[in-house]
Amino acid sequence: MNYGIVLRVLGSILILESALMVPSLLISLYTNQWDKMPFLITILITSIIGFILLRKKNQNKHISAREGLAIVSLGWFLISLFGALPLYLSESTPTYIDAFFEIVSGFTTTGATVIADVEVLPMGILFWRSFTHWIGGMGILVFTLALLPALGIGAFQIFKAESPGPIAGKIAPRIRDTAKILYGTYFAITIIQVVFLKLGGMSLFDSLVYTFGTVGTGGFATKNASVGAYNSTYIHLVIGSFMVLSGVNFSLYYSLFKGKWRDVLKDEELRLYFIIVGVAVLSIAINLYSTVYSNLGLAFRDSFFQVGSIMTTTGYSTANFDIWPTFSKAILLLLMFTGASAGSTAGGMKVIRILIMLKLIKREILKIFHPRAMKPVKLNDKILPNETIAGINSFVGLYIIIFALSTILVSLEGVDLESAASSVAATLGNIGPGLGFVGPTSTFFGYSQISKVFFSFLMLLGRLELFTIIALLAPRNWRREI
Amino acid sequence: MNYGIVLRVLGSILILESALMVPSLLISLYTNQWDKMPFLITILITSIIGFILLRKKNQNKHISAREGLAIVSLGWFLISLFGALPLYLSESTPTYIDAFFEIVSGFTTTGATVIADVEVLPMGILFWRSFTHWIGGMGILVFTLALLPALGIGAFQIFKAESPGPIAGKIAPRIRDTAKILYGTYFAITIIQVVFLKLGGMSLFDSLVYTFGTVGTGGFATKNASVGAYNSTYIHLVIGSFMVLSGVNFSLYYSLFKGKWRDVLKDEELRLYFIIVGVAVLSIAINLYSTVYSNLGLAFRDSFFQVGSIMTTTGYSTANFDIWPTFSKAILLLLMFTGASAGSTAGGMKVIRILIMLKLIKREILKIFHPRAMKPVKLNDKILPNETIAGINSFVGLYIIIFALSTILVSLEGVDLESAASSVAATLGNIGPGLGFVGPTSTFFGYSQISKVFFSFLMLLGRLELFTIIALLAPRNWRREI
Repeated sequence: MNYGIVLRVLGSILILESALMVPSLLISLYTNQWDKMPFLITILITSIIGFILLRKKNQNKHISAREGLAIVSLGWFLISLFGALPLYLSESTPTYIDAFFEIVSGFTTTGATVIADVEVLPMGILFWRSFTHWIGGMGILVFTLALLPALGIGAFQIFKAESPGPIAGKIAPRIRDTAKILYGTYFAITIIQVVFLKLGGMSLFDSLVYTFGTVGTGGFATKNASVGAYNSTYIHLVIGSFMVLSGVNFSLYYSLFKGKWRDVLKDEELRLYFIIVGVAVLSIAINLYSTVYSNLGLAFRDSFFQVGSIMTTTGYSTANFDIWPTFSKAILLLLMFTGASAGSTAGGMKVIRILIMLKLIKREILKIFHPRAMKPVKLNDKILPNETIAGINSFVGLYIIIFALSTILVSLEGVDLESAASSVAATLGNIGPGLGFVGPTSTFFGYSQISKVFFSFLMLLGRLELFTIIALLAPRNWRREI
Repeated sequence: MNYGIVLRVLGSILILESALMVPSLLISLYTNQWDKMPFLITILITSIIGFILLRKKNQNKHISAREGLAIVSLGWFLISLFGALPLYLSESTPTYIDAFFEIVSGFTTTGATVIADVEVLPMGILFWRSFTHWIGGMGILVFTLALLPALGIGAFQIFKAESPGPIAGKIAPRIRDTAKILYGTYFAITIIQVVFLKLGGMSLFDSLVYTFGTVGTGGFATKNASVGAYNSTYIHLVIGSFMVLSGVNFSLYYSLFKGKWRDVLKDEELRLYFIIVGVAVLSIAINLYSTVYSNLGLAFRDSFFQVGSIMTTTGYSTANFDIWPTFSKAILLLLMFTGASAGSTAGGMKVIRILIMLKLIKREILKIFHPRAMKPVKLNDKILPNETIAGINSFVGLYIIIFALSTILVSLEGVDLESAASSVAATLGNIGPGLGFVGPTSTFFGYSQISKVFFSFLMLLGRLELFTIIALLAPRNWRREI
C-alpha cells in the first residue's frame, strides 16, 4: 500500500471540507446564533489535521485499486467524522453518535434523521446539514478530483470507486475534465431549481436547502412536516419534477447540452426509468383514489411526489404514506430497491442493473428454445462484456444478502418485521424514511446507539455500492499480489 | 410442435394418476365413508380420458425442448385438475377452486391449505391429499419415465424440466434407470420413517400420512394442530430429522449406498446446507430462550423442528412461530427463500444457487485486487460452465422479480405487507404456512377465489422452477425456429 499518496489525498479532502463549511459559518455569524463557535472550532480542527496529512511528502504517485478503495472509504468516513462535529458541539443532537448518524445520512444523501424537531435548530446547522447532501450527491472525491492537480492514472481508480452504477463512464478523456463537467451540470441544475422555488414564494434560505435536498436526492428539510409543510401544488410539482430529473444519469444532460438529443431519447435506462415512474404513479394514484382519496387530482399529485421521492431515494414526503393501502406501500417498498439511474445522485440498485437482469432473463428463456444460440447481451446497441454482467449479478446478489442479514440483525431491536426490513432498505438504499417505526412522520431516534452506528455503516455501504467497502473488509490474503 | 407425442405422454400420466388413486379408494371402501363414490367417479373419468389421449397413434417420437416444456407444464396442470375432483365431489371444500388450490398445494408439496378443520374429512380424502405430496415430491414425470417404455433422447428434456436445481444430474446413463434409482431411494426412506413413527406409538394411517408429508416436504397433516398435536419429543425429533434428511440431494443417498461416502462428505452444497441449518437452529433457540421460552431444551426442540420444516419447505409446525420474536421470524422468512438442496423434494431457490452466488461475489472481490485474474468458478472441484452460471443468475433475478410483483398484486386483497409477502414466499417457495394472515394457525381460506387461482399458479411456478412455465408464456416469436 502506498500510504503516502493515501494520506495526501485524505488531507486535501479535509481541507476542502473545512472550506465547504465556511458558508455555514457565515450564516451562523450573520444570524448570530449559538452555532458560531461550533463551526469555528470544527473548521480549525479539520483544516489543521488536513494540513498535517498533506505535509507528508512523497514522490510515488502510483494509485492502484487498493489505494483507490482506501482513499474513497476512509475519505467518506473522515468527512463524516469531522462533519458531525458542528452538530454535536451545538448540541443539536444529544450524543456524538447521533450527530455522526445524521451527517452520514447527509453525505450519503439518505436523509434519515434522528432529530424529531428540526425547526429549533440554528440556521447555520440547518444549512450545513442540507449542504452535505449537495456535496455527497455528486461525490466529495469527484469534487476533489476536479480541483486537485492531475493524479494521473490513479484518478480513474478513485472515480470508479465513488461513481454510482456498474459502468463508470468517462465523459472527457481526462478524469479531471469529466469531474468538472459533472459538477458544472450539477451546479446549473441547482441554480435553475433555486430560481423556480424562489418564484413560488419560498425564502432564499429555504429554496437553497430544499434544492440541496432535491438535486442531491437527500431529503433533509427545514420543516418537521418535510415538503408537506408547503401547502402549494406549485412547490410540490417543482420539487417532484426536480427529484425525477435528478434521478437521470447526469452525463445525459451533457449529451443534451452537446445537442445529441437522439442518443438521449434512445437511452435504454432512461426509457425504463420513465416507464417505471409512469406505471408506479398511475397505479398508486388509482389505488389512492379508490380507497382513501376523494380527489383524483390530489391522488395524482401525492402519488407523483412520493414515487419521485422514493424511487430517486430522496425521501421527502408530502403525505404520510405509511397509512396508505398495502398495495401502494408495496410498490413504494419495491421502488426502494430499484432506485433511479446510474450516474445520478440517487441510491438503490439502479435501473440499469434491473434492465440488464431483465435482458439476461429474456436470453435464458430464448436459450430454452434455441439451445445453441447464446446471444451476447446488448445495451444501447453495445455488447456488454461478460465481466460487467458477472459484476452486476454479484452486486444484486450481495445487495440482497446484505439486506436480508441486516434485517435479521436489526430485528433484534424488537421492532416488527416491516419496520426492520424497511429501516434497512431505507438506509442501504440511501432513501431516508421507511415504513412503520421509521415511517415519514417518525425518525430513527428510537433505535439504540449501536444500531445507529450499524445504520451509518449501511448508508456508507449503499452510497459506495458495497464492493468498495466490502473489499477493504475482505480477508487479508485475498488482497495479496499474485 | 409434435402434438402426438405430447398427448400420448399426457394420457399415460392420467392413467397413472387414476391408478395412484386406488389406495385412497380402497381406504374409503374399508372405512365405508362418503368419499367412496367421489373416488370411483374420478378414477373412471380420469382413466377414460387418459385412454382416449393414448389412442392417438403416431410414429414420430421426437421430443425437443418445446415438447418437454408442454408435457411437464400441462402434465402438472392436468393431474391437479383431475386430482381435485374427489375433494370437490366429497364436499371437502366449498368450491372447485378451493379443491384445485388444495391439490395443487399437495402435488407441489407446498402444504398450504384452505381447510380449517381437517379432522372432519373422510379417511380416503386425508390419505389422497397427503399421498399427492409423496407423488409430487419426486415428480410425477419422473415416475412416468420410470414406468414408460423408453422415450429415447426426449426423456432427458422432460427430466430436466421437472428436476429441481440448476444442474439435472443423471445418476445412470439412461434416464429410465436414473428415475428408477431415485424412486427406489425415495421408497426406502419412506419405509424407514414409517417404521420409526410406528415405533413411537403412531397409528399406521397417521404414520403413512405424516411420512408422505415429510419425505415429500409437503406438510399436510391429519390434525388441525399439525405435528403439534403430538405431545411427544420422540415424534417431533423423528419428523424433524426426516425433514432435514429429505432436504438432501437424493443422489447423495445413492452415492452413500454405493460406498462413496468421501464424495458425500466433501459435497459443498451438503456442507453449506448443514451449516445454515445449524446456525439457524442455534440463533433461534437462543433468541427463544432469552425471550418467550423458559426451558432451553424445549427452545432447541422447537427451533430445530421449525428450521427443518421451513428450510426444507415442508411447513409442519409444532409451535405458533407467528408469535415468536421478530428476530426468529426474520430468520425463518429468509429460509423460505433459500430452501434446501437441489435434487431433493424441497422447494425454494435451493442452497446450491446461494452457494454459487457466494462464489461469484468472492470472485468479484478478488477481481478488484487482481483485475487480470478472472478465475473460473468451481463446484465440487469441477469448473462450472458460464452458461450454468448465467442460468443461476437469471433464476435468482426472476425469482425475486416474481416475488416482488406478486406481493404487490396480492396486497390488493387488503392484507398487511408481512402477510402478503409471506403468502407469496410460502406458495412460490412451496412451503405452506407463512406469517400473519396465513400464519401456522390459520389457512388461505380467507383469500378471494381469484387469489387462490393465482396462488395455485405460483405454487406450480415454484415447483417447476419458473422457466418451464414462463417459457410457455413467452411471446410466440421467441419460440420460432432460427
